[in-house]
Amino acid sequence: MRPSGRKLDEMRAVSVETGFTKHAEGSALIKMGDTHVLCTATIEDRVPPFIKGSGLGWVTAEYGMLPRATNTRMRREAASGKQGGRTVEIQRLIGRALRAGVDRSALGERQITVDCDVLQADGGTRCASITGGWIALRLAVNKLMKAGDVVSDPLVDPVAAISCGIYAGQPVLDLDYPEDSEAGVDGNFIMTGSGKLIEIQMSAEGSTYTRDQMNQLMDLAEKGVGELAEIQKSVTA
Amino acid sequence: MRPSGRKLDEMRAVSVETGFTKHAEGSALIKMGDTHVLCTATIEDRVPPFIKGSGLGWVTAEYGMLPRATNTRMRREAASGKQGGRTVEIQRLIGRALRAGVDRSALGERQITVDCDVLQADGGTRCASITGGWIALRLAVNKLMKAGDVVSDPLVDPVAAISCGIYAGQPVLDLDYPEDSEAGVDGNFIMTGSGKLIEIQMSAEGSTYTRDQMNQLMDLAEKGVGELAEIQKSVTA
Amino acid sequence: MRPSGRKLDEMRAVSVETGFTKHAEGSALIKMGDTHVLCTATIEDRVPPFIKGSGLGWVTAEYGMLPRATNTRMRREAASGKQGGRTVEIQRLIGRALRAGVDRSALGERQITVDCDVLQADGGTRCASITGGWIALRLAVNKLMKAGDVVSDPLVDPVAAISCGIYAGQPVLDLDYPEDSEAGVDGNFIMTGSGKLIEIQMSAEGSTYTRDQMNQLMDLAEKGVGELAEIQKSVTA
Amino acid sequence: MRPSGRKLDEMRAVSVETGFTKHAEGSALIKMGDTHVLCTATIEDRVPPFIKGSGLGWVTAEYGMLPRATNTRMRREAASGKQGGRTVEIQRLIGRALRAGVDRSALGERQITVDCDVLQADGGTRCASITGGWIALRLAVNKLMKAGDVVSDPLVDPVAAISCGIYAGQPVLDLDYPEDSEAGVDGNFIMTGSGKLIEIQMSAEGSTYTRDQMNQLMDLAEKGVGELAEIQKSVTA
Amino acid sequence: MRPSGRKLDEMRAVSVETGFTKHAEGSALIKMGDTHVLCTATIEDRVPPFIKGSGLGWVTAEYGMLPRATNTRMRREAASGKQGGRTVEIQRLIGRALRAGVDRSALGERQITVDCDVLQADGGTRCASITGGWIALRLAVNKLMKAGDVVSDPLVDPVAAISCGIYAGQPVLDLDYPEDSEAGVDGNFIMTGSGKLIEIQMSAEGSTYTRDQMNQLMDLAEKGVGELAEIQKSVTA
Amino acid sequence: MRPSGRKLDEMRAVSVETGFTKHAEGSALIKMGDTHVLCTATIEDRVPPFIKGSGLGWVTAEYGMLPRATNTRMRREAASGKQGGRTVEIQRLIGRALRAGVDRSALGERQITVDCDVLQADGGTRCASITGGWIALRLAVNKLMKAGDVVSDPLVDPVAAISCGIYAGQPVLDLDYPEDSEAGVDGNFIMTGSGKLIEIQMSAEGSTYTRDQMNQLMDLAEKGVGELAEIQKSVTA
Repeated sequence: MRPSGRKLDEMRAVSVETGFTKHAEGSALIKMGDTHVLCTATIEDRVPPFIKGSGLGWVTAEYGMLPRATNTRMRREAASGKQGGRTVEIQRLIGRALRAGVDRSALGERQITVDCDVLQADGGTRCASITGGWIALRLAVNKLMKAGDVVSDPLVDPVAAISCGIYAGQPVLDLDYPEDSEAGVDGNFIMTGSGKLIEIQMSAEGSTYTRDQMNQLMDLAEKGVGELAEIQKSVTA
Repeated sequence: MRPSGRKLDEMRAVSVETGFTKHAEGSALIKMGDTHVLCTATIEDRVPPFIKGSGLGWVTAEYGMLPRATNTRMRREAASGKQGGRTVEIQRLIGRALRAGVDRSALGERQITVDCDVLQADGGTRCASITGGWIALRLAVNKLMKAGDVVSDPLVDPVAAISCGIYAGQPVLDLDYPEDSEAGVDGNFIMTGSGKLIEIQMSAEGSTYTRDQMNQLMDLAEKGVGELAEIQKSVTA
Repeated sequence: MRPSGRKLDEMRAVSVETGFTKHAEGSALIKMGDTHVLCTATIEDRVPPFIKGSGLGWVTAEYGMLPRATNTRMRREAASGKQGGRTVEIQRLIGRALRAGVDRSALGERQITVDCDVLQADGGTRCASITGGWIALRLAVNKLMKAGDVVSDPLVDPVAAISCGIYAGQPVLDLDYPEDSEAGVDGNFIMTGSGKLIEIQMSAEGSTYTRDQMNQLMDLAEKGVGELAEIQKSVTA
Repeated sequence: MRPSGRKLDEMRAVSVETGFTKHAEGSALIKMGDTHVLCTATIEDRVPPFIKGSGLGWVTAEYGMLPRATNTRMRREAASGKQGGRTVEIQRLIGRALRAGVDRSALGERQITVDCDVLQADGGTRCASITGGWIALRLAVNKLMKAGDVVSDPLVDPVAAISCGIYAGQPVLDLDYPEDSEAGVDGNFIMTGSGKLIEIQMSAEGSTYTRDQMNQLMDLAEKGVGELAEIQKSVTA
Repeated sequence: MRPSGRKLDEMRAVSVETGFTKHAEGSALIKMGDTHVLCTATIEDRVPPFIKGSGLGWVTAEYGMLPRATNTRMRREAASGKQGGRTVEIQRLIGRALRAGVDRSALGERQITVDCDVLQADGGTRCASITGGWIALRLAVNKLMKAGDVVSDPLVDPVAAISCGIYAGQPVLDLDYPEDSEAGVDGNFIMTGSGKLIEIQMSAEGSTYTRDQMNQLMDLAEKGVGELAEIQKSVTA
Repeated sequence: MRPSGRKLDEMRAVSVETGFTKHAEGSALIKMGDTHVLCTATIEDRVPPFIKGSGLGWVTAEYGMLPRATNTRMRREAASGKQGGRTVEIQRLIGRALRAGVDRSALGERQITVDCDVLQADGGTRCASITGGWIALRLAVNKLMKAGDVVSDPLVDPVAAISCGIYAGQPVLDLDYPEDSEAGVDGNFIMTGSGKLIEIQMSAEGSTYTRDQMNQLMDLAEKGVGELAEIQKSVTA
C-alpha cells in the first residue's frame, strides 16, 4: 500500500501552466503532485566556445531549489558560494536529456538555456524538470519557427522522464518524497515520446536489485513516460 | 505622462496569494504589477551566536532572483560562486526593515528567516519583498501564537515599503522598470503601518535633488505605504 | 550630553594631509576625530566594458579596513576570501556619491578609482571616505588638467558626507563610535557643496523615527556638509 | 572492428599492484589497459555528523585526475578553486557503489575514505576506480579484522564496475578512450560479485537506444563484472 | 653607482613612529626610505587548536598591501577573492621570523597577531615588515609585562631583516625598487640582534651566484641587521 | 645517529623511472627513499600574457600531494577550494629553480609546465620535485630538439636540489620525515650541475644557527647536488 493511496503504476496528478513568466521565450510551471517546478527557456544568439563556427546549436540547463522548497530550510547555494554536488549532477542530466531530442543542426548556431527552479519539492524534482523543461523548450522553439528564424523543426522527438523504484518490496511508478526516502532502490528513466531510451539511472543505496526487477521498473517507466508525452503534446499544441 | 498611463501618485495593482507553498510556516506570492516575489518565512529554534542566551529572537532575510526573472537572462548567483553586491545590499535592507516592526523579546529565542525570491521582475523588487516578506512573517507568527509558543504578539507595527522617484521631472509613486531605468533620482521608503519612518534610501545617479523634492517624495511614500498596510491587514486577518 | 562633550551640532576636529603617498595621482589622509582614512585616486586610460566607446569616463571606489583599525581585531577580508556585505555596500555608496559630482563627458574615456582604506576607525568611516575621497579625486583631476589631458573641469560640484542620528533622544551631528553603537536611528547625508542632495540613507535598527526628526537631522547635515566643503576647498586650492 | 583489435566482449588487460603506497591502510594501483588509477583506503575513528551515535560506519570516496593524466593537460582542480561537475558526479557514484557492498553495522562507527587518483587516463576511469577502490577497501578492512577491531566481516559482497556502450552500431564491453569519444550511447554497470545490480547509468548523447540494446549491454556487463570479481578475489586473498 | 647614490653597504634612512594607531596593543609605522609599513600587534587570549592546552603561546603574522601602495594600482586581494602566492609566502615568513625570537613558554597560552600593511612600497617590504613587526610585538609584550600578565620577558633576542643582492655586478645592501627590479640575484637575511641567523632566502631569477658572492652578501647583511637592531632598541626603550 | 642509520653526509637511495606516463612530453617517477614524486612536463604553444611577443619561452611548475601521500590523510586541496600556502610556496620555488637553468630565448615562445605530484611523502618532497622535474623537462626538450622545433639546446645547466639541516646538533644531508619533524634548522639548496647557487632557503623554527653551521650545510649540499646531477645525466642520456 502506497502512503498516498495510489496504485503501483499510478502517477501523481500532473498540471502545467504555460506562460507563467512573461520575459522568457518559453515558460511553464509544472506540478507533479506537490512537486512544483518553474521552467523557463532563454534563447541567445551565441554558443559555447567549443562549437563556435560549427553551425550547430546548443541546449543546456540549470537547476535550483528555493531554500524553503523543502520541509526544512536548506542553505541558499548562492550564499554558500557554490552549487552542491547534487545540483551539478541534476543540471548536467537535464541538459543531456533535452539535447537527445534536439537536431542541433536544424537549431542553428544559437543556445537555449533551460532553467528549472523548484518552488516546492515532494520527490521527483529532476524528472519534473526534464518533462517541464521540454515544454518550455518547445514553446521557445515555436517562437523561433513562427518568426522564421528556424525553418525545419529542431525538436525531433519529445523528451520526458519519470522515476521508479522498489518501495516496500514492490516496483512503483513516480515516487513521492515519503516513498523516495524509504526506497532502497530507485532511479529515473528518460525516454522519448516514441518510446526510445535516452538515459537510465537506477541506483541502490545500501541494497541491490535483480535483472527481473529492472525489467519490471522499465515496464512502469514506459507507461509513465507515455502519459507524460501526451500531456506535453496537449499543452504545447 | 507615465509609460503605464498611471497617475503620478498611483501604485500598480497589488495582489497577494498567501499559502503559495506548503512547507514554509508562512508564505505569500506578492504581485505589484508585473513584479512577482515569492516570500516564505521559516521558523527555527536557534539564534545567531551573538544573541545566544539573551532571550531575544532574530529576524533575518535572504533575497534572490531567478535567472530569467528579468528581460535578459542573468547569471545564476549560485553558479557564479557568490551573491553580488546588489543582492547583499538588498537582503540586509529587508532584514533590517522587518526587524524594525518586531519586539524581539516577545518573539523569544528563535530565528525567523524570510526568503524573498523574485519570480518575475519589473522594478521595485526590494519594496515588494519587504511588503510581502512582512505578510509571510505575520502568517508564521500567527502559527506560533496559535500553538501557544508565543504569548504576546511580537509584531508590534506592520512594515511596508514603496519606491518613489523623479521621472521626467515629476515626483512619481511606485516606479516600474521603464521608469526606474530612466529616473535620475529614486529610492525607497520603508515605514510602519502607523506612519513612522524606518528607513529612507534616496539616491541620485549622476544627478541631484532638492529638499523640496525630497518632501514631495515623502508625501507620495506616505500615501503608498498606507495603502499597502491596508492590503497586508486584509490578507493576514 | 554627548560622551565626547561636543555640542549637538558640533562636528569632530577635521584634518587633512594631502600627498600622503607618492605613487597615487591624488592622495589624502583625512582624520575626523579618531577616524583616519587614507584615500588615493588612481587614473587609468581604460573604462569598464559597458561604456567603452561612449566617450564618457567612470569614477569608482573601493573600501577596506585594516584588521586592527577597530577596537578588536577583525578578520582580514583578503584572508576570508571575500568582501563582506558591509564593505560592498559602502564602496558602492562611495562610488555613486562621487560620480554625482562629476561631468563624465568632460572627464573623457578614462577611469579614476578611489581607494579608501581605514587605518583607524571611530565611527563615520564611510562619510570620511567620501569627503576624503573627493579630495583625492580633486587632486588627481588637477593633475590631468595641468597636463592638458582634460580641458574643461569635470568636477562640477564638490561632494561631502556627514552622519547624523538620534542619540539619547536628541538629534546629533557626526556620531563617533560610542554614539553610533548606542543610536537606534542614524544615517548618512551626502550633499554637494552648493547644498543639493545626492543620497540620504537614514535607518532605524529596532526603532523608528518621525518626519519631524528627519527634518531636524537634515538641518544638521546641511550645516556639517557646508563646513566640510570649506575644508575640501582650502586643502585643494 | 574495435580500434584496439579486441573482440566485442573482450575487456582490456587488467593488472593490480597492491600495497602501492605505504601509509594508507589499503592501497592498490589498478591498470585497465592504459587507464591507471591509484586507490587508497584511509580508516578514521570518526563518522559524519548525520550518523554520529548510530553505531553505523560510513564509506565515502574522492576522485581526482592528475593534470597530465590526459592527452592534453587539464587545469588542476585545486588551482581552479573547485572540483568540476564531472569530478563531483564520479566521486559520489564511487562512494554509493562501494557502500552497497558494506554492512555498515558490522563496520562499526568508523569512516573509510577511498581516494581514487587517476595517474593515466584512457577511458573508463570511474569503473577502474570502483573496482580498484573495492580492493583498497578490502585490504583496509582485512587490517581491521586482523587487529580484532572488527569481528564480523562488513564486506558482504564484492563490488566491481565495467563500462559498456554502442560503438559503430555494435554493443561492446569496456570502452577505451577512442571508442568512448565516438560512442553515442555508453554507460556503466556496477554489480556485486554474486551478480546483483547496484547501479546502472546508461546515457545517450545526441542519440537514443532500444530496450533490446539495453539487454545486450547488460549481458556484456555481467560477463565483465564476473571477470573483475575473480581478479579482486585473487589479489586480496 | 647605485641609482639613489648610496654606498654599496649603505642602508636607506630609517624612521619609526610608534603608537601610530590607538586600538592595537602595539603599533609602529616604519619607513625605510620610501617603503612605509604600518605594523600592529594584537594580543588575544586564545591559541590555535594545535597548541591548546600546551601552555605555549603563538605569534603569527599577516601581510597586505594597499592597492595603490605601488607605482601602478594592483587589484585588491579582498576583491579578487584570495591572497596571492606572494602574500602568503611573505606572511608565513614574517611569522616564522618573529617566532624565532620568542620564548613561547614565557609568553603563556596567548596569541599575538602582527599585521603588516604596506602603505607605500619601494622595495624591501618584507624586511621592513619583520623589523617593524618586531617593534609592534615588543610594545605589545611590554604592555603585558607592565600589567603583570607575563612575568619573564618572552622576547629573548630581537629580530630584524634586511635585503641584499647583486646589482650591476656588485653586492649591495638594502635594495630599493629600482635596484630590486634589475638585480638577477637578491634575497633576505633575517637575524637576531646578537648576530645569529634565523632565515636566509637568496634566490636568482634566470641567473646564478657563487659561494664567494654569498659570503659577501652575508657580510653586508650582518652590518645592516646590526644597525636595525640599534634602532629597534632606541624606539622601544 | 640518524634514525635511518645513514651517515651524516649520506643521501637516501635514489631511483628514477622515466616515461612513467604516456601522454606527457616528458615524465619521470623519482624516488628518494620513501618519497615518491611523479613529474610530468607539458609543452604548449602559448606563453603567459606578460611575455607574449617577446620571443622568450616560459617554464612554470605546479605541485600537489595526493591526500594519503602522508601518514594521516590530508584534505584534498581541490575539495577545500584552494591551494594552501605551503603548496603555493613550493610550486613557485620549483618554477623559479627550473627557470634558472633555462635559456628562455633558445626555448622560443612556448611554455613548459612541470607538474610534480607527490604519490608518497617522507620528507624532502620539494627537492625531489625539482630534481625529478628537471628530468621531465629534459625529456620534453629532447623531444622538441629531435623534432627540430628547437635548434640550440635551451637547457644550459642541469638543476637539482637537496635538503640539509641540523639534526640532534649535527649537520646532516637529505632529511627524511622523522629527521625533518625534529630538526630546528633545515632548508633547501638548489644548485646547478656545475656547482653554481640558484637558491638557498635555510630557516630555523624556534631556533637559530651560526655562520659556521651555514658553511657546513653548504658543504653537504654541494656533495648531494653533485650526486643528483650524475643521476639526472645517466637517466636522460
